[in-house]
Amino acid sequence: MADDVTTILPDSVLGARHEAERRAVAAAVAIPAHVVQAKGHGHAGTAMAMAPLAHVLFQRILRHDPADPTWEGRDRFVLSAGHASLLLYTQLHLTGYDLTLADVAASRQLDARTPGHPELGHTAGVEMSTGPLGQGVASAVGIALAAQRDEALHGAGTGVFDPTVFVLAGDGCLQEGVSGEASSLAGTLGLENLVLIWDDNRITIDGGTDVAFDEDVRARYAAYGWRVLEIEDFRDLAEIERVLTAARERTGQPTLVAVRSTIGWPSQGIGGTPAAHSGGFGDAEVAAVKTALGIAADASLDDLVTPEVLTVTRRALERGARLHAEWRDAYAAWMESADGRVMMRRCSGVAGWHTDGGFAGALAMEAGLAELDAVEAPEEGASVATRATNGKVLQALQQWGGLFGGSADLSGSTSVAVPGAAMSRSNPGGDFVHFGIREHAMAAILSGIALHGLWRPYASTYLAFSDYQRPALRLQALMGLPAIHVYTHDSVAVGEDGPTHQPVEQVAALRTIPGLDVVRPADGAEVLAAWRRILSAPSGPTALVLSRQGLPTLAARSGLDESVAHGGYVARQHGSGADVALIATGSEVQLALAAARVLADEGVEARVVSMPCVEWFSEAPVEYRDAVLPPTLRARVAVEAGRGDAWWRWVGIDGRVVSIDEFGESGAGDQVMARRGMTTDAVLAAAREVLAR
Amino acid sequence: MADDVTTILPDSVLGARHEAERRAVAAAVAIPAHVVQAKGHGHAGTAMAMAPLAHVLFQRILRHDPADPTWEGRDRFVLSAGHASLLLYTQLHLTGYDLTLADVAASRQLDARTPGHPELGHTAGVEMSTGPLGQGVASAVGIALAAQRDEALHGAGTGVFDPTVFVLAGDGCLQEGVSGEASSLAGTLGLENLVLIWDDNRITIDGGTDVAFDEDVRARYAAYGWRVLEIEDFRDLAEIERVLTAARERTGQPTLVAVRSTIGWPSQGIGGTPAAHSGGFGDAEVAAVKTALGIAADASLDDLVTPEVLTVTRRALERGARLHAEWRDAYAAWMESADGRVMMRRCSGVAGWHTDGGFAGALAMEAGLAELDAVEAPEEGASVATRATNGKVLQALQQWGGLFGGSADLSGSTSVAVPGAAMSRSNPGGDFVHFGIREHAMAAILSGIALHGLWRPYASTYLAFSDYQRPALRLQALMGLPAIHVYTHDSVAVGEDGPTHQPVEQVAALRTIPGLDVVRPADGAEVLAAWRRILSAPSGPTALVLSRQGLPTLAARSGLDESVAHGGYVARQHGSGADVALIATGSEVQLALAAARVLADEGVEARVVSMPCVEWFSEAPVEYRDAVLPPTLRARVAVEAGRGDAWWRWVGIDGRVVSIDEFGESGAGDQVMARRGMTTDAVLAAAREVLAR
Repeated sequence: MADDVTTILPDSVLGARHEAERRAVAAAVAIPAHVVQAKGHGHAGTAMAMAPLAHVLFQRILRHDPADPTWEGRDRFVLSAGHASLLLYTQLHLTGYDLTLADVAASRQLDARTPGHPELGHTAGVEMSTGPLGQGVASAVGIALAAQRDEALHGAGTGVFDPTVFVLAGDGCLQEGVSGEASSLAGTLGLENLVLIWDDNRITIDGGTDVAFDEDVRARYAAYGWRVLEIEDFRDLAEIERVLTAARERTGQPTLVAVRSTIGWPSQGIGGTPAAHSGGFGDAEVAAVKTALGIAADASLDDLVTPEVLTVTRRALERGARLHAEWRDAYAAWMESADGRVMMRRCSGVAGWHTDGGFAGALAMEAGLAELDAVEAPEEGASVATRATNGKVLQALQQWGGLFGGSADLSGSTSVAVPGAAMSRSNPGGDFVHFGIREHAMAAILSGIALHGLWRPYASTYLAFSDYQRPALRLQALMGLPAIHVYTHDSVAVGEDGPTHQPVEQVAALRTIPGLDVVRPADGAEVLAAWRRILSAPSGPTALVLSRQGLPTLAARSGLDESVAHGGYVARQHGSGADVALIATGSEVQLALAAARVLADEGVEARVVSMPCVEWFSEAPVEYRDAVLPPTLRARVAVEAGRGDAWWRWVGIDGRVVSIDEFGESGAGDQVMARRGMTTDAVLAAAREVLAR
Repeated sequence: MADDVTTILPDSVLGARHEAERRAVAAAVAIPAHVVQAKGHGHAGTAMAMAPLAHVLFQRILRHDPADPTWEGRDRFVLSAGHASLLLYTQLHLTGYDLTLADVAASRQLDARTPGHPELGHTAGVEMSTGPLGQGVASAVGIALAAQRDEALHGAGTGVFDPTVFVLAGDGCLQEGVSGEASSLAGTLGLENLVLIWDDNRITIDGGTDVAFDEDVRARYAAYGWRVLEIEDFRDLAEIERVLTAARERTGQPTLVAVRSTIGWPSQGIGGTPAAHSGGFGDAEVAAVKTALGIAADASLDDLVTPEVLTVTRRALERGARLHAEWRDAYAAWMESADGRVMMRRCSGVAGWHTDGGFAGALAMEAGLAELDAVEAPEEGASVATRATNGKVLQALQQWGGLFGGSADLSGSTSVAVPGAAMSRSNPGGDFVHFGIREHAMAAILSGIALHGLWRPYASTYLAFSDYQRPALRLQALMGLPAIHVYTHDSVAVGEDGPTHQPVEQVAALRTIPGLDVVRPADGAEVLAAWRRILSAPSGPTALVLSRQGLPTLAARSGLDESVAHGGYVARQHGSGADVALIATGSEVQLALAAARVLADEGVEARVVSMPCVEWFSEAPVEYRDAVLPPTLRARVAVEAGRGDAWWRWVGIDGRVVSIDEFGESGAGDQVMARRGMTTDAVLAAAREVLAR
């Protein structure tokens, strides 16, 4: 630190290598304060205090190449404290990503590349969408988990597949249960490539953290099996570098880096108080901040980012190019190695997979579809639970290797058990993951695996417990990540375990999440057809809703793959089928079929529409939809063993919805189904009622 | 332990005071094994291993009176590991609650008083519904929190209001994030009346806990600020009594009691393995268990519960009567004390509140309604956010004292800040709670406060984060607990914070939960009217969905209280209103009103229906509904700034739904609303379209 020039200012950036670097960091501190004050809204406090750390991370620690944000070999940085988006945007601009100072200034405006919280796909260099607290931590665990497995399977020791995942979190993230769940699993699995930086600023919106959070976070993370490091002075670049360098060492444990900081530093008036969390500091205070940093009090945004500053910060481009070139050499060597050759052979036909360093995440699914062809649907009439057929699919796809996932302690009863050994600290290349009884973290970790890009992730639990996952599901849908959620035990037919385990509203509630496809197949053949679409067109997450109980396998239907891919189809038609449509999903299709047969005997020309996926049907061409549900139909009935409100869309005010709109009860599954009105008679009665109108 | 007779069996109950007690405990171990084997399904393993502990708890530790399960002064026992319901049912039967052996044998049958998981209201002595893991722990924190406040406010040191809350949890409960959130808060608040018993059996369904959960739980709880005690031998009644006696001492900290156990003990073949979690052990193994316990291998259920056993266990009735009588004396003394007299005066007119020891939980709301009368609605035309009017209501009701709650670190921006000081370790009688950034635990804790019975609990967060709370909301709705959830920032009008903070699907998703009333008022007057119904008819939980942005206060409407209580009403009618109904909620009512005015100028007779609560409207008499939405209406349009699927029920296939069915984006709130189609023009266009048909 011979070159330490910071003593010229009493409370400023410490440990800079030269005055130009100090000025660069000072600019990074001042930018968020300036932008938020200019706009009148936004979050400056954390972005200011963490600016020295972010500078060190982006200049000296992170393996990244601003010229190629999708470089497969890069380290990852996840800003779990997403409100501090200006921290990230500032670094992205300064280090040379495709983001202008005008973009940073336009933060939070409509159509800006700098939305209020970071959003995947909107800004080069943003690794995931964050904002809902705790989610970034949990998904970072997923990225690290996938990377650790990738390295173990494909090139341990080669330096090709060993990114370090850094995640920055505030107290809010660490109070959320989902981060605790994921951190506990990270400790169990020994994710040594994960570094969680905790901005320990002792402030939350409602006051000091001690009003609600006086636990010993360091001790808690040690209890999870983490290594705990400390940055005593958040302003000291040298200390930050020393600790972060230690943090990325592989020690068999994930690492928590606790940074004692002062939110809104170096503001004297507002720094260290809850007021620093959001909103402008006021012109006078922002001027004082600039002065404290050795910047002219009236400096504009352009004044802050001088050519001198950019000269310092854009060195990240050279550094990135060098790191990228070194990695490319290592990658080429790996390609020539025995491991690499085996892998290339194995993956021939799988486009985009470790073949050109592009790591596009667009894993082609042909090989998976070929494995799927080997799975036979149950024979007509055979009573087979859809979870069972789904289990066969997962086992077949395990051969393929393009899927990776596990269960929240229900691998047996959700039928997702596959051969092989679980991932563990001593077996990082394991075949599946025991996520533990942590449904929420599991869903968030799936996002991380999908973001890593090598595998289509899947996970399983009971449908009733999808409730635990909703914040992670929502973020996953927002990011358009192609995760697959296997939800079994899909209705009150679960039976004896009672209402807490019997889903009633979950299917309807999942359908409300934009971008999440909810698929509830009627039999094994529909399960297979659904997987074909899921593998072929991975547009976002899918919820696969499956029965615990056996369901009769329907008669063979020609063109079923296309029918299911369109979300709904005529499963059976009596005569013209023009009198009444009985629309059903999953286990209720059999009720509709039975009711239609009775109606046919009475001369009523009924059609049964199986609609495994309302989302897919809604997207189908209108001609297709009108052929399945002709506008000229005399009457319509929908039947589903769950909340029915949204089905009125398909039957109209004059239609009928046979649904379960209250909680279930403990008892034998078939008895509970009957008591809640899920019977052929109920469907018949509804059909007769609408036909009589 | 002079009387210890257990040495006659190599691996049996230890520390019994006499052989008859040993036999009683042996019976309690054998009952679940027998019942599950006889039925072929259910969960025996944990109920067997924890039977000695449950015996000590119910016989020697718990302050309870089996003859009066609702006795206000009782300790609480929450079985968070709800699958072990037979543990609880066995103790309830043996100690003399209103539950027969036949009831226990009928476990999991339809209409049995012994459902698969404990259910509040189904079985005397069951304190809450449990089953979804982690929920019992979190709600127990709520009961303890309420009890601690009650004691601090009403009778510290009198022994009248100082129940101890015991909760039994397995590894699953402790892996769930919600239990961690709640436990951290319990440590911060120093809930010394809370004892969490952890069945540390190192087994989960998918294998040993080490596959996913090798953290140091004891150290984690110490980090939360808990005291950690240990039971080394789960079979030793004397040790259990010693440790649980220590656990209920008041030390300023909540207590974790770790019990190292063997699931399915004393089965040699299945005990200690995941197979002991659920399902029968097989006839031979159950016979071996009985033999190991010194019971005839072919003993029937009646043989297990001998008169000698009942003589031992029914002593709980005498003990309960004695404890109850002592408490009644203390209560009477308190009534005569200065504190008691003040309280009685303050609560005159509030029926059922600490007035007869009945503690019915049916707190009459007259006094609250009187405070509500003092709150004035904003003036017509004034632009006031519904969150602001709601804040005034909460401040008024704070005077009354019948509400108690807080916020998940958003008390300011959700406008729930009330005067006074926060609850803390040093201020247990505080006026509100800082729940921390723990939305899920907050909702579960609300259930605990409601179960305690003294206050109507409320809590606040942003609507988007209601996703975090769904498992707790569902259980709360299932139990019918009258909690009030204040959700602000209720649409994409949130603006700059972007899609992660902009609710789109939340209102629709909340409406799917049976028994949860979702209320989205259009202006301050509707807020007041909604509170009148919420206070008057507390049938279950309510979600109060409020705007961040100002909304124009509508013209005065006569009979608004009744209109809102019916869920929907005609807010404005042009002419006969028979041409078209524009149905809207919350911030979209103004759009419907504006559109109706334009239509009126064109000679169209439109009515605007404000429908703040679809659930209430659905329950209204059909005559009322038909008056608001006559079947003869020519056309109908619904408008709501969120997922619209369920609105088709009210407009029909020929209607139109103006909704937001995709995620929002970052930008000024009004701009995002416009871009997502929430404009008067869009409503007009929809109305013209349906009228043209």
